[in-house]
Amino acid sequence: MPKGAAEARAHQIATLRQLAHEQFTSDEVGDLLREAQVALNGTDRLDDDASLIRVTLKDYEKAQKLPADLVAEMARTVSQAKQAWKEARETNTFATFAPLLDRLITLNIQKAEAYGYEDTPYDALLDEYEPGMKTSDVESIFSSLREDLVPLVHKIKESVQPDNRFLFEHFDHQKQWDFGIDVIKDFGYNFDRGRQDVSAHPFTTSFSITDVRLTTRIQEDYFPTGLFGTLHEAGHGLYEQGVALELDRTPLAEGTSLGMHESQSRLWENLVGRSYGFWTHYYPKLQALFPERLSDKSLDTFYKAVNKVSPSLIRVEADEVTYNLHIMLRFQLENALIARDMNVNDLPEVWNETMQEYLGVRPDSDSNGVLQDIHWSLGVFGYFPTYALGNLMSTQLFNQIRKDVTDVEQQIATGHFEELLSWLRTHVHHYGRKLTATEILQRATGESLSSDSWVTYVEEKYSAIYG
Amino acid sequence: MPKGAAEARAHQIATLRQLAHEQFTSDEVGDLLREAQVALNGTDRLDDDASLIRVTLKDYEKAQKLPADLVAEMARTVSQAKQAWKEARETNTFATFAPLLDRLITLNIQKAEAYGYEDTPYDALLDEYEPGMKTSDVESIFSSLREDLVPLVHKIKESVQPDNRFLFEHFDHQKQWDFGIDVIKDFGYNFDRGRQDVSAHPFTTSFSITDVRLTTRIQEDYFPTGLFGTLHEAGHGLYEQGVALELDRTPLAEGTSLGMHESQSRLWENLVGRSYGFWTHYYPKLQALFPERLSDKSLDTFYKAVNKVSPSLIRVEADEVTYNLHIMLRFQLENALIARDMNVNDLPEVWNETMQEYLGVRPDSDSNGVLQDIHWSLGVFGYFPTYALGNLMSTQLFNQIRKDVTDVEQQIATGHFEELLSWLRTHVHHYGRKLTATEILQRATGESLSSDSWVTYVEEKYSAIYG
Repeated sequence: MPKGAAEARAHQIATLRQLAHEQFTSDEVGDLLREAQVALNGTDRLDDDASLIRVTLKDYEKAQKLPADLVAEMARTVSQAKQAWKEARETNTFATFAPLLDRLITLNIQKAEAYGYEDTPYDALLDEYEPGMKTSDVESIFSSLREDLVPLVHKIKESVQPDNRFLFEHFDHQKQWDFGIDVIKDFGYNFDRGRQDVSAHPFTTSFSITDVRLTTRIQEDYFPTGLFGTLHEAGHGLYEQGVALELDRTPLAEGTSLGMHESQSRLWENLVGRSYGFWTHYYPKLQALFPERLSDKSLDTFYKAVNKVSPSLIRVEADEVTYNLHIMLRFQLENALIARDMNVNDLPEVWNETMQEYLGVRPDSDSNGVLQDIHWSLGVFGYFPTYALGNLMSTQLFNQIRKDVTDVEQQIATGHFEELLSWLRTHVHHYGRKLTATEILQRATGESLSSDSWVTYVEEKYSAIYG
Repeated sequence: MPKGAAEARAHQIATLRQLAHEQFTSDEVGDLLREAQVALNGTDRLDDDASLIRVTLKDYEKAQKLPADLVAEMARTVSQAKQAWKEARETNTFATFAPLLDRLITLNIQKAEAYGYEDTPYDALLDEYEPGMKTSDVESIFSSLREDLVPLVHKIKESVQPDNRFLFEHFDHQKQWDFGIDVIKDFGYNFDRGRQDVSAHPFTTSFSITDVRLTTRIQEDYFPTGLFGTLHEAGHGLYEQGVALELDRTPLAEGTSLGMHESQSRLWENLVGRSYGFWTHYYPKLQALFPERLSDKSLDTFYKAVNKVSPSLIRVEADEVTYNLHIMLRFQLENALIARDMNVNDLPEVWNETMQEYLGVRPDSDSNGVLQDIHWSLGVFGYFPTYALGNLMSTQLFNQIRKDVTDVEQQIATGHFEELLSWLRTHVHHYGRKLTATEILQRATGESLSSDSWVTYVEEKYSAIYG
C-alpha cells in the first residue's frame, strides 16, 4: 500500500467492519440461527450444518452482547493508546502510557462484564482467543510449567554456550529466500493456493481455504530470522490450507484458536525445523548454498548454534526454551491487572523483578521491559497465554504422532513430511472451528492440555545439547 | 492471486456486489437522496453536496431500474459467452460464439429498455460509459472524422515508411522499467499515493484518491510497449490522483467518463510522449541507457520510428492515426446490432469488408477480425466509442492548453510538466464526476466535442513525418 493511503484504508476497513457487524447482529440473523438450531436438534455434533450453527450462534451471541458505544470507546482509546505507547517506548517514559493503559483495563473489564463469565473477568477475555479455556486451567498449567522450567533455564545459563557467531555473518537474501521456499514446498505448503511475500513483521493471512498467504522477512546478517520465520508462518499456512474445503465461505473455515494455530507454527518451526533429523537432510543443501559460511562448520556445530538458549529481555527474540517464561510473566500481570489486584503504576517494577526471578535478567529500561509489546496498547488482553499454550499443544500432538507414525523422525530426516502432514490434516486441520482446541487435543491424544510433554521434550533435547 | 483462488475470489466479489447493490437500491437510500435534493434546491450546481446528490440520485435511479433477474441472466450468459468466445477465437470458428453473442445483444436491448432512452436503445448503453453523450452525436462526429481520416491513412500507406526495426531489438527489462518510472515521476504521478506493478494487460485502479495504482508490461523485444503503456496508464492515474480530496469516499471521486479518462491517458501518451519536444529532452537519456541500441540512431530516426503508421488488423496494436478507424468500425457494427439492423451471422463479412474500406487490409481469419476483442463476450456494448472520443477530447483540450500556457511545448521539451498538469488539475481532474465530459470540455475550451482539432493535429504531425 502506498504510504499516503493509510488513512483512506483505515476508513475503508472501519466501514466494512461496521457494515458486517450491523448485518451479522441483526435480529433476522439471530432468528434464522435459532430456527436452524432447533431444526438440527439431535444431529451429530460434528455434522457440518450442526457445527456451523452452533459456532455461529456463539459468535452471534457474543457479538450481540457487546454494546456499540463500548466498541466505539475502545476504538477511540486504542487509537490514542497506540500513539502514547509508541511515544512512551521511544522516550522510555512509562508514565506517558500508564493512564491510557489504565483506561483500556477498565474497558476490558467492561467488555468481560458484557460477555459474562463463570469465575473471573479474565475468563471472558481469554475465551475470545482460546475458546473454552479457563483462567484457572491456564494458572495450574503455568504453575506446574514454571516449577520445571525456571531451574532448567538457570542450569542452562551456567553451562558452556555453543558458538553461534557465524550465523551473524552475511547470508545472501535471494539464496535464503529460495531455500525457505524449497523447504516449505517439501512440507506440503501449496503455492497454487498461496504465496509468500516480504513484510516487516511476518504473518499469515487467509482469504479462503484456497488463498492462504504468508509473509516473511530476511536478515542478511542473521540467518535464523528468515528461515525459522518462514517455517513458522508455513505452519500457520498449512493449518489454514488444511481446513476441509466444504467449510469454505463459512465462519468455520479457519483455525479453531490462537493456541492451536501456534501449535502448528511451532511444530513445523521447532519440532521439525530445529530438530537434528531435519538438519541431517537439509544441512548439506544449506552448506552447498553458502559454502563460504558453512563449509567448515559441522552439522553438530550448526545444530547447536540454531538451538542456543540465552535468557534475554525481548520476547520476540527469545529461544524455544525461555519463550514460555516471557509469556507466563505477561499472563500473571494481565491477570492481576484485570482483577484490579495490581495498580498500573506498579507494573514496571513487578515486571523487572519477575524477569529477574524467571530468567535471571533485569531490563535496563522500561522500553526493553514492560513497554516492549504492542498488544496492550491495542486493548488486547488474554491473547498472550495462547503463545505458550500453543507450544505445549505442539509437543503433546507430536508425541501422539510418534506413536501413530512410528518412523516419523526418520521420515523427517530424509525430507519426507507427507505422513506427518496427513496426520495433522486428519486430526487437527480439517475440522476448522468445528471442534475447540481442547476437544481436538482430547480426541487426538486422549489427554487434556498439560506441560508434561513439553518439559520432557526440552529436557531431553537440551540435555543433549548442553551436556 | 494464487491461481487456485480464482473461484473463491469470484464468489467474494459476487457477494460484495450483491450486498452493495441491495444496500444502495433500498427505498431508504432513495428517500434520503430525494429529501436531500429538495433541501439543496437552488444550491449552485458545482456545490459539492448538490453535485453529490445529483450524481448519486442518477446512479440510484439507474440501479433501481435494472431488474435483478436481468442482471442475473446477464451474468450467467456472460460466463458462458466468455468461454465460447475464447474457444471460438482459438479455433477460428465464429459460429461457436454467435448464438451467445446474439443472446447478449437481446439482453443489452432489454437493459436499454429498462433504463429508457430518448432516441435509440444504444443511447442508454452509451450513457453507462459516456454519461450524457447521444448516439446521434457520436454518429455525426465519427462521420466527419471518417471523411478526413480514410484518405489520410491511404496517403500515408503509399508513402515511404520510417525504419523501426531497431525497436524490436533487445532492451533490458529493468532499464525500461526504471526509465518509465523516471518519466512519470517527472509528469507528476505521486508515488506516495500510488505504485506501479507488472500485469499481463496494463490497467489503472483506484481505491481512493490517495491510492491510485498502475500496472504495465515490458517487452524486451519491442521497446514501445513498456514505455508508452506506462505513460498511458500514468495519464489515467494522474486523473484519479487529481480529483479534489474533499470528494474522497463519495461516488464523485473518480473520472467522469471513459472518454474523458482516455483523453488524459492519450494526452500523456501521445500528445506529450510521442511529441518531438518530449524526445528532445528524453532521447539523450534513453541513448545513455541503451547505447548499444541507440547511439547510432538520431533523434529524428527515433522520433519517426515511434510514430510509424501502419494499417493493421489488431486494434490494441494500432498506431495513433489508424486507431480511431478500428473504433469507428466497432461503433458502426454495435449500433446496427443493437438496432437489430444486422444479423449476427453477417458480422464477420461486414467486419472484413469495412476493414478493407477503412484501412485497406482484410483479416485472414475471424480470430484476427471480429473475434479479436473480449468486450462483446463480457456483454459490454457502448464502451468502444469512448476510446475514440477520448482521442478527440485530448487534442481539443491540448489546443486550449497551448492558448493558456503559451510555452507549454517548450516546457515539455525541457522535461517540465508542472504547468501542464496544473492546467489539467484545474480544468478537468479536480471536478471528479461533478461535471460530465461535455460540460468539462465546454467550460475549458468553449467548444463542444468535434473531430476538427484531432484531424488538424494528425495532419500536421504526420505531414512532417511522412513528407
